[in-house]
Amino acid sequence: MNAAERRVRDSFARQTFMSLLGARLGRVSPGEVDVELPFRNDLVQQHGYLHAGVTTAIADSACGYAALSVMPDDAAVLSVEYKVNLLAPAAGRRFVAQGRIVRSGRTITVVRADVLAFDEREDARPVLAMLGTMMAVRGRGIVD
Amino acid sequence: MNAAERRVRDSFARQTFMSLLGARLGRVSPGEVDVELPFRNDLVQQHGYLHAGVTTAIADSACGYAALSVMPDDAAVLSVEYKVNLLAPAAGRRFVAQGRIVRSGRTITVVRADVLAFDEREDARPVLAMLGTMMAVRGRGIVD
Amino acid sequence: MNAAERRVRDSFARQTFMSLLGARLGRVSPGEVDVELPFRNDLVQQHGYLHAGVTTAIADSACGYAALSVMPDDAAVLSVEYKVNLLAPAAGRRFVAQGRIVRSGRTITVVRADVLAFDEREDARPVLAMLGTMMAVRGRGIVD
Amino acid sequence: MNAAERRVRDSFARQTFMSLLGARLGRVSPGEVDVELPFRNDLVQQHGYLHAGVTTAIADSACGYAALSVMPDDAAVLSVEYKVNLLAPAAGRRFVAQGRIVRSGRTITVVRADVLAFDEREDARPVLAMLGTMMAVRGRGIVD
Repeated sequence: MNAAERRVRDSFARQTFMSLLGARLGRVSPGEVDVELPFRNDLVQQHGYLHAGVTTAIADSACGYAALSVMPDDAAVLSVEYKVNLLAPAAGRRFVAQGRIVRSGRTITVVRADVLAFDEREDARPVLAMLGTMMAVRGRGIVD
Repeated sequence: MNAAERRVRDSFARQTFMSLLGARLGRVSPGEVDVELPFRNDLVQQHGYLHAGVTTAIADSACGYAALSVMPDDAAVLSVEYKVNLLAPAAGRRFVAQGRIVRSGRTITVVRADVLAFDEREDARPVLAMLGTMMAVRGRGIVD
Repeated sequence: MNAAERRVRDSFARQTFMSLLGARLGRVSPGEVDVELPFRNDLVQQHGYLHAGVTTAIADSACGYAALSVMPDDAAVLSVEYKVNLLAPAAGRRFVAQGRIVRSGRTITVVRADVLAFDEREDARPVLAMLGTMMAVRGRGIVD
Repeated sequence: MNAAERRVRDSFARQTFMSLLGARLGRVSPGEVDVELPFRNDLVQQHGYLHAGVTTAIADSACGYAALSVMPDDAAVLSVEYKVNLLAPAAGRRFVAQGRIVRSGRTITVVRADVLAFDEREDARPVLAMLGTMMAVRGRGIVD
């Protein structure tokens, strides 16, 4: 494991909210990070599908770490903004958020993510599309 | 409690994810719904602030129920899309997501939310701004 | 030219704003529509780059017609919402907005677009990414 | 006219695209800038309403200059991203985009805008809501 992957994995481990969800890191490579989540009955909205806040949360983490994976050692990553379209009810046995860099800059990195739902046959379909903006910060506040 | 408020409260009670977060409904009036959340250490990102997925989740629920509160009895509400700006680190003792209707239509309702963070003195500051699109559905799929 | 392509081209021809910009339709196939635009000095912002409103306008038209290209004959298309990231200064000799369907539904169609800038050597680079929501309407108002 | 207002008005005058649209600056005060636009038949989409690219363009300019109005003298403003909801068909005799600062920071400024349509009686209704992100740059590229 190289230094960048180590940094991503150490930081993810400090996101106690990912632990609460039961989410774990999958693939970590430069500009590409996956976050995986098994379905649980305590993560749903009123119709029994995964709550949009849950799919958004794993997409945000996947995007943030995709951005961090190519940032300098002394930089931290913060989410400036994101937008999501919910493509289908989030029904499935497990979910994978695939965070990818669209455009990487010194301060601003534009990212996107797809969240895929896998059913019992391991057939996948997209349930969420995210487009977002991450920022490299060096010892300063979130959007300052 | 009138029928619309009853319907909102019943539906919110079925969102098991809100229970997992420790979130509860506050104000419920036509077109205006608040969701409240006390801080907890298992809801944070790597820097100790509330995870953006958490603030987004309560904002989404507040917006969805603001929309549902003015929909006909036979309609269900589904989130089509939303976008958020994260305005400041989500530090605080408790948080309130204020969902409001911007424009209400037969099929599409445009909504917004502010999430406020309250510190120990009960001083508030905004940490998230959401603009989103909700859809009234009648026995059909989410975006069909 | 089939009926769907004819419908797209007839509708585009009624968008007087596209004429004002000097934009024209490129590729029109099911779910995929391109809009092309040569650079002009009267389309710029304060630094001499194409105004973000211009690149957004051709991306919106490309997305709307990508959605319309797969809608039933009696449906019209309206933009519900969109969001864009500006990836780089919009410098170039010509620009192409590539509208694509992400997920097609009966009422709601989710779309995306990339706007590419071509320089004098015909090298391309992306300057805008759009994610948006289109709606099929049948003789009703825009978001009603 | 103070230095900040002068700077906004000089910069706006260099946006040739605003001239092409027939848009002009209205109110310019710290954090609040209005852009006004009379209706014209060459600014419409296929149903005869103002094209969404037009209302987005004046909203983007209003937001950018709202941000610039509170930035240091040596900073330029660039749009990082924005998202819009189209609330109603953009029918009217004239339109006003009201750009406002939501949260101002050293590098990132979060902005919003409403576009109002005025009919022949000067009755107004909102047709577009924007939420966006502007960036202060000092001699560097757009998102670098």
